Amino acid sequence: MDATTKVTLFSILMLFWSHAECNHLLHPLDPLTPSELNLVRTIVQNFYPTSQNLTFHYVGLDEPNKPEILKWLSSNNSKIKPKPRPPRRAFAVVRFQKQSHEITVDLSTHSIVSTKDCEGNGNPMLTFGEQAVASQLPFSYEPFKESLKKRGLNTSQVVCACFTIGWFGEGKTKRNVKVKCYYANDTANLYARPLEGVAAVVDLDDMKIVGYNDRYVVPVPKAEGTEYRASKLKPPFGPKHKGIAVTQDGGPGFTKDGHSVSWANWNFHVGFDIRAGPIISLASIYDLQKQRHRRVLYKGFIPELFVPYQDPTEEWYYTTYFDSGEYGFGQSMSSLQPLNDCPPNAAFIDAYYAGSDGTPVKIANAFCIFEKYAGDIMWRHTEISIPNEVITEARSDVSLVVRIVSTVGNYDYVIDWEFKPNGCIKIGVGLTGILGLKAGTYTNTDQIKEDIYGTLIADNTIGIYHDHFFTYYLDLDIDGEANSFVKSNLETVRVKDDTTPRKSYWTVVSETAKTEADAKINLGSKPSELLVVNPNKKTKQGNKIGYRLLPGPVAHPLLLNDDYPQIRAAFTNYNVWVTPYNKSEKWVGGSYVDRSRGDDTIAIWSLRDREIENKDIVLWYTMGFHHVPSQEDYPIMPTLSGGFELRPTNFFERNPVLKTKSPKPVHFPNCTSQH
Amino acid sequence: MDATTKVTLFSILMLFWSHAECNHLLHPLDPLTPSELNLVRTIVQNFYPTSQNLTFHYVGLDEPNKPEILKWLSSNNSKIKPKPRPPRRAFAVVRFQKQSHEITVDLSTHSIVSTKDCEGNGNPMLTFGEQAVASQLPFSYEPFKESLKKRGLNTSQVVCACFTIGWFGEGKTKRNVKVKCYYANDTANLYARPLEGVAAVVDLDDMKIVGYNDRYVVPVPKAEGTEYRASKLKPPFGPKHKGIAVTQDGGPGFTKDGHSVSWANWNFHVGFDIRAGPIISLASIYDLQKQRHRRVLYKGFIPELFVPYQDPTEEWYYTTYFDSGEYGFGQSMSSLQPLNDCPPNAAFIDAYYAGSDGTPVKIANAFCIFEKYAGDIMWRHTEISIPNEVITEARSDVSLVVRIVSTVGNYDYVIDWEFKPNGCIKIGVGLTGILGLKAGTYTNTDQIKEDIYGTLIADNTIGIYHDHFFTYYLDLDIDGEANSFVKSNLETVRVKDDTTPRKSYWTVVSETAKTEADAKINLGSKPSELLVVNPNKKTKQGNKIGYRLLPGPVAHPLLLNDDYPQIRAAFTNYNVWVTPYNKSEKWVGGSYVDRSRGDDTIAIWSLRDREIENKDIVLWYTMGFHHVPSQEDYPIMPTLSGGFELRPTNFFERNPVLKTKSPKPVHFPNCTSQH
Repeated sequence: MDATTKVTLFSILMLFWSHAECNHLLHPLDPLTPSELNLVRTIVQNFYPTSQNLTFHYVGLDEPNKPEILKWLSSNNSKIKPKPRPPRRAFAVVRFQKQSHEITVDLSTHSIVSTKDCEGNGNPMLTFGEQAVASQLPFSYEPFKESLKKRGLNTSQVVCACFTIGWFGEGKTKRNVKVKCYYANDTANLYARPLEGVAAVVDLDDMKIVGYNDRYVVPVPKAEGTEYRASKLKPPFGPKHKGIAVTQDGGPGFTKDGHSVSWANWNFHVGFDIRAGPIISLASIYDLQKQRHRRVLYKGFIPELFVPYQDPTEEWYYTTYFDSGEYGFGQSMSSLQPLNDCPPNAAFIDAYYAGSDGTPVKIANAFCIFEKYAGDIMWRHTEISIPNEVITEARSDVSLVVRIVSTVGNYDYVIDWEFKPNGCIKIGVGLTGILGLKAGTYTNTDQIKEDIYGTLIADNTIGIYHDHFFTYYLDLDIDGEANSFVKSNLETVRVKDDTTPRKSYWTVVSETAKTEADAKINLGSKPSELLVVNPNKKTKQGNKIGYRLLPGPVAHPLLLNDDYPQIRAAFTNYNVWVTPYNKSEKWVGGSYVDRSRGDDTIAIWSLRDREIENKDIVLWYTMGFHHVPSQEDYPIMPTLSGGFELRPTNFFERNPVLKTKSPKPVHFPNCTSQH
Repeated sequence: MDATTKVTLFSILMLFWSHAECNHLLHPLDPLTPSELNLVRTIVQNFYPTSQNLTFHYVGLDEPNKPEILKWLSSNNSKIKPKPRPPRRAFAVVRFQKQSHEITVDLSTHSIVSTKDCEGNGNPMLTFGEQAVASQLPFSYEPFKESLKKRGLNTSQVVCACFTIGWFGEGKTKRNVKVKCYYANDTANLYARPLEGVAAVVDLDDMKIVGYNDRYVVPVPKAEGTEYRASKLKPPFGPKHKGIAVTQDGGPGFTKDGHSVSWANWNFHVGFDIRAGPIISLASIYDLQKQRHRRVLYKGFIPELFVPYQDPTEEWYYTTYFDSGEYGFGQSMSSLQPLNDCPPNAAFIDAYYAGSDGTPVKIANAFCIFEKYAGDIMWRHTEISIPNEVITEARSDVSLVVRIVSTVGNYDYVIDWEFKPNGCIKIGVGLTGILGLKAGTYTNTDQIKEDIYGTLIADNTIGIYHDHFFTYYLDLDIDGEANSFVKSNLETVRVKDDTTPRKSYWTVVSETAKTEADAKINLGSKPSELLVVNPNKKTKQGNKIGYRLLPGPVAHPLLLNDDYPQIRAAFTNYNVWVTPYNKSEKWVGGSYVDRSRGDDTIAIWSLRDREIENKDIVLWYTMGFHHVPSQEDYPIMPTLSGGFELRPTNFFERNPVLKTKSPKPVHFPNCTSQH
């Protein structure tokens, strides 16, 4: 039996399984199913002769081209004979013999479409498999054993982890990482107990320690006070809450068909990618007046997160993480805990990704979807000017939230996509989890005479200053693909004559960005509204149909532009970029980010200064947080929240929720007794 | 019977009523009760001989001095023999014979403590009474009748309203307002149907029309499409929601004793003032570790809102409202609609203010208080680094919200004070209601060749550009009165040697503001954290105990500094000011704002450049919105939300909600059938 026969037989089996596991037809943007992941593995392993050493660093859906999707969608929506689904393809990045390869697989024909050896700088994402192996290496490495002995630590309680090391101007680089260790004795909070001063360098391809440093001994911070598990904490507990829940007596108001969601006036698709995590696609909103769905967002996801720490010393200077390209924001997603991570009315969706060996790994409850009823007011007015009448009309607000949590090492990121009936899409980010902590000799700020690059947060424990930059890919298709980017600047007009007692007022001066250079924006420098409009469509009143970006917390990079981490993260140099749609421009910091050199970021792509007027365009928006840790962030951080909004702006002819009624109050069941 | 006897007899009666209506002792910061308001009226009317023409423009609690309150509070908290309550006093501003008078009344002794004739610029708030009378004057004014006839309008459907006119450099000014009118025929949305070009000038003291203008005739926008009452709208309705509610089977988790609220770890007092609206006082948080309540906020309220419109033409140039000082943000509060304005688990509090004639006016359901459970995550972490274990700990978030809505003419402001168990106070603002609309001849933007100072939002209807500046008075008392204001600037350090491969990093350089001049801050100019700290207390680790301001949307005034409205609103020239506590510095834009000249704003007070280090200080923070209307804002605006946060920063030794458990899921009653 040759390789092709084996593949074919296997895939027949797989297809059978696939039918058994899915009771719905796959949407062209659905993430790869476990069967498909298995199929990719088989096809790829059979194609390459050295399959035994081959590792899978990325396996994801190779999306059909946008025109294909749109064609399928419109035929599907029109309910005339639907077009056949575009063929399912997968894209994989595998590595063997110290070389990365890209493979595109056709899942319908079970054939390899193309392969490519990766040249250039940068490596694919780290796999959990290799990180697990690398993290074990120190335990059989004599100098490390010596380091533990010197510190009097119990080896069985030591836990190590891998850290990417970036690029600092070196010539040829290997897939090296640093391995740093923690003392998990008497606590789950290992990050609070670092073995400071100790680091091994591991070559992931050779899977061996190629460097080791035990620079100094400082006390491992004590376990006391680090624990966050309720089962390990001692009373008193508090503050206490009474029972509270969101109740929907008629069941959820949304419908979920596989990964496609319909709710109120919204339709959208929830995808998953091992690297990007959640992907929201094909968001369209029903226009009550026009009596049809209208397109808003073709695709939105987080292509990169940049988290530079601000300690330049030996053990920390390289700590400038790219949580998507280095660690995989998707594979880092955590299983959500019902009732604690999501309210009682939430529904869940699982996710699957390919492990190092290509076999599917399940993340149970990876997504939750729920209707949010926070008690907010959708709109209201009280009118008292009409004699003998007081008119009050008010509507309470309900929205639909799609949530994931990605836990990249110590940090937990809560990512919400919230759809509001008024047409707004709110994108929320919550930062929680454990701080990046450094051990030191200090127990009180009085003792400190130098910069410790952070806040002394507990005895012998420093919370290092750092930033979080979240870059969003927002392929808005406002009523169609051909869109323009408009800056509506608010400009003061100085009155120079006597036509009015006013000396000044402001007005709006709009500029349409012609090329990419016009659309590089640092927020906060001047007051303006940023819009994506469809220049080919106007409202009845003649206004350009559009959506507006309401930015979240503004932070600009504080590293120098020519500093290595900033060269690699040059996509954060501006809060906003706009590019023409290009299927291959997806990962804002580059396709291969581990040890990258910044030669494949949007800052480079945009140098071509392409035309962006009346084109299919993509808005790239970076929201940032500078984080000066405080003692409240220890031993676990209360969520710090931020977010931004995409808001319809002359997209609708009028308030799209004018004729929405508040949800009915819940009817409680007829009850005989109270529990 | 002389006046004094009458007062005494009356007040005995009042005291009796007072006992009947209250089943709790008054807190020294409780707003004046209806009986007290009546008592003030009687005392004042008896004191002045001309009582028949006397109007009450402001009646409010004359708060005991801060040391008295603190002394009472500490004796009250310690549960040793509580100190007697400080005497209840009221402060009133009345007007007769074209003169304003300030009167302080002692409610215990029923005596007048002091009186003062008001000199200087600026007038007290408009009363609803005089606005109602003034709004009727056009109907008996021949030129106005002529104007209506010319336009063919049905007089019985015309509604007029009063608009303050500011100050534009005039010498002597009167209490003049403009009266503009609307056509409420076939709609509740009168603002959508202005009689553009027509305005009367009314002298409120003489209560007569002293000027009239009918400049031009433009079509009154049609009624069709302006209605927002569900009962008047035609199907289809939608988008539709399924029933949803927040449920608390054990009842609310907070306790309310009069105006004092306790919930989870928070205690605070909810006051009310006819001018300021809601006042949050004495907010303190229980520290589980220190086992005592610790002081956070002595007092917080909105002393002024500035809403300048950006149309310099005759009928609009003066439209630069001060919603607190001119219209009374408190008396403009609307009765909240259960289920629509607040969730089902809300409790309500009424408010009372003195009408023009001094008699109490009730605002039923003026406040709502509810536990908010929006499905958010308080903190969480998933740990996968410990072999053979996946640890997930997550806590869901509950907070307590105090909400009011103040409807100042066309606009509805939703003001939320949200207390979080993690120590944060989030202050939310929602903008909804009806836009300021101008009638015009245009029906399509194609026809427009000039600046129309707004957005063409419907046929013949322009939504005028405007701003909303909300200034907050925040008397933080972080663990005591003596506090300092610290700017923690994030500064880039350029590495000049070879000690690290990094070329740069950022660090924190803190400056303590010595005087007021050091604390005038325009946000967004440089990255910094703004803190109020107690320099006399430190955490165990030696960090300064503090609270941090996390600003909301940043907007700077776009009017020229020497333009008249901006001179009057000079408090918006900076986003942040810090002053030493001074009981008399309360109204950031001046005590008498109608037609004010900016001579009593914080910009003037601060010129003294007083010391603010280690003093009882007040933080004044201005959050702003520039509003470019869009068609979605018509005929009624979907809420636009913003807010800021006060966040404990090294206030606690550690995460104060580490030992909080998620609320219990609700136990549903044992049920026999479903409704």
